[in-house]
Amino acid sequence: MKIAVLGTGGGVRAHIAKLADLGHEIHVGTRDPQATLARTEPDMMGTPPFKQFLSEHPGIELHTFGDAAARGEPVINGIDGHNAVAALAPLAAQLAGKTLIDYAVPYIYRHQPEHPWPTPWGIMPKLDPCDTDSLAEQIQRALPEAKVVKSFVTQEQTTVVDPKIIGGGDHTMFVAGDHADAKQQTTELLNSYGWTDVLDLGPLVCARGMEMYAHMHSAIGFGLGHQFGGHFGIKVVR
Amino acid sequence: MKIAVLGTGGGVRAHIAKLADLGHEIHVGTRDPQATLARTEPDMMGTPPFKQFLSEHPGIELHTFGDAAARGEPVINGIDGHNAVAALAPLAAQLAGKTLIDYAVPYIYRHQPEHPWPTPWGIMPKLDPCDTDSLAEQIQRALPEAKVVKSFVTQEQTTVVDPKIIGGGDHTMFVAGDHADAKQQTTELLNSYGWTDVLDLGPLVCARGMEMYAHMHSAIGFGLGHQFGGHFGIKVVR
Repeated sequence: MKIAVLGTGGGVRAHIAKLADLGHEIHVGTRDPQATLARTEPDMMGTPPFKQFLSEHPGIELHTFGDAAARGEPVINGIDGHNAVAALAPLAAQLAGKTLIDYAVPYIYRHQPEHPWPTPWGIMPKLDPCDTDSLAEQIQRALPEAKVVKSFVTQEQTTVVDPKIIGGGDHTMFVAGDHADAKQQTTELLNSYGWTDVLDLGPLVCARGMEMYAHMHSAIGFGLGHQFGGHFGIKVVR
Repeated sequence: MKIAVLGTGGGVRAHIAKLADLGHEIHVGTRDPQATLARTEPDMMGTPPFKQFLSEHPGIELHTFGDAAARGEPVINGIDGHNAVAALAPLAAQLAGKTLIDYAVPYIYRHQPEHPWPTPWGIMPKLDPCDTDSLAEQIQRALPEAKVVKSFVTQEQTTVVDPKIIGGGDHTMFVAGDHADAKQQTTELLNSYGWTDVLDLGPLVCARGMEMYAHMHSAIGFGLGHQFGGHFGIKVVR
C-alpha cells in the first residue's frame, strides 16, 4: 500500500521503518523538507537527524505535509500533540475521506519549568485538552471530512510496531473513532504489526480516556523500575 | 483485625461484607448514624438502605466517621470523591499515624446536566482535581499525619474484593503512596482478597494517573459491551 506518515520524530520513525519492512510505499511529510534534511544535530529527545535515518532506510520519500497526505492512505499523524491541529487543519483537501490515525499525547511541554522532563518520580507534563475534550476530537472537528482514529497512544511506538517485544504474552491495543471502516483499516494495520488483541472502544470520545491514560502508563513504567521508554503491555483480561 | 470503613455506599459495602467474611471486626463510619439508619429508600444509584444491609451482615458496628476512624486500622475511605476532603479533614486526630486507603474517583456529578450519568456512549463526569493534582494528594495535604495510600480505584469494588471473578486469568492491582509501611499493609489486605499481582507505582503523585484511568476503564467496559459495572481486569504484561 501507499501509506502517508506525517512527522519525522523518534516515535513515527518506528512506523516508517516497520511499514517499509512490510513492503509498503512510504510517503513522509514534514513542514519544510529542505530544513528537515539540513539538520545535522540530534533533536531535544536525542533523536538523530532525519537525513541519517533516510540514509539507513533507502526508498522512503520526503515531502511537505500536504504532498505526503495526498499520496497515501491511511495517514499516520506523528506530529507532536501541541502542534497537530494547526499543522493538520490546512490539509483538509488532502485528508478528505481518508483514515487519519492519531497517536499523540497532548502534553504541554515545559509548563513546569522547575521540573525537568521526564522527571524521575513520574510527574509528566500537563495535558491540554484533558477530561472534557481530546486532541483526537479537536483534529476531527478541524477536519470534518477526514476519518480520525485514535490508536497507538497507550504504548511507546517501538512496542506498537513490534508487540511481541513483550515477552510475557499477548497484550491489548485500542482503537476509537466515529468511522467503522477507518477503525477496520487501522485494526488491519495493527494486525500486520503483530497485534492479536485489538479492542474497539467505540466512538472518538473514548480518545479522552486513551490520552489521559498517559499518566498511568508513565506510572506503571516507573513502578516497574524502567526509566522512560521501558517495555510493558496492558492486557484486558475478560 | 479491627478495620475502619468510612462511608455506606454501594462500593464500600463490598469491602465491609468481604472483610466481615474474612473474620475482621468492622467499624463503619457515617456522617450521622441515626440518619443513615432512618433511610428506607434506595439511594440515587439504586443501592438499598444501609439498615437492610446491616440486617444481612450482623455484627457490624455503625459509628460517626470519627468514632469509626478511632477504632480501626487500616481505614478504608469510601466517602464519595467530591465530599471526601471536607469529611476527612476534621478526623486528623483519629487518623494520625494510620494507613488511610482512598479509592475514590473525583467525579463532579451533574456537571453536564444535559447528559444522564452514566451515559450509554462512555462519557463520564468531569474530574476535579485532574492532571496536575489528585484527590489522594489533597487528602494527604489535609491530613499530613495520616499515611494515605491510593488503591482499588482502577476497578469496581465488587472485583476489588473478589479478583477471581474475572475468569480470564491473573490481573493487576496498583498501590501508590509516600509511606512504604502503609503500602505494605494495603498490599497484604489485597492479598487477603485474592490479588496475586499488586504493583507499587511509587509515590502518591502517581494517584493522578490512577484517578485519570477512570475514563479509560469506562471506555474499556463499554467497548466490551458491558454497561457500567461490567467485570474485566487489566494485567500489566512484562
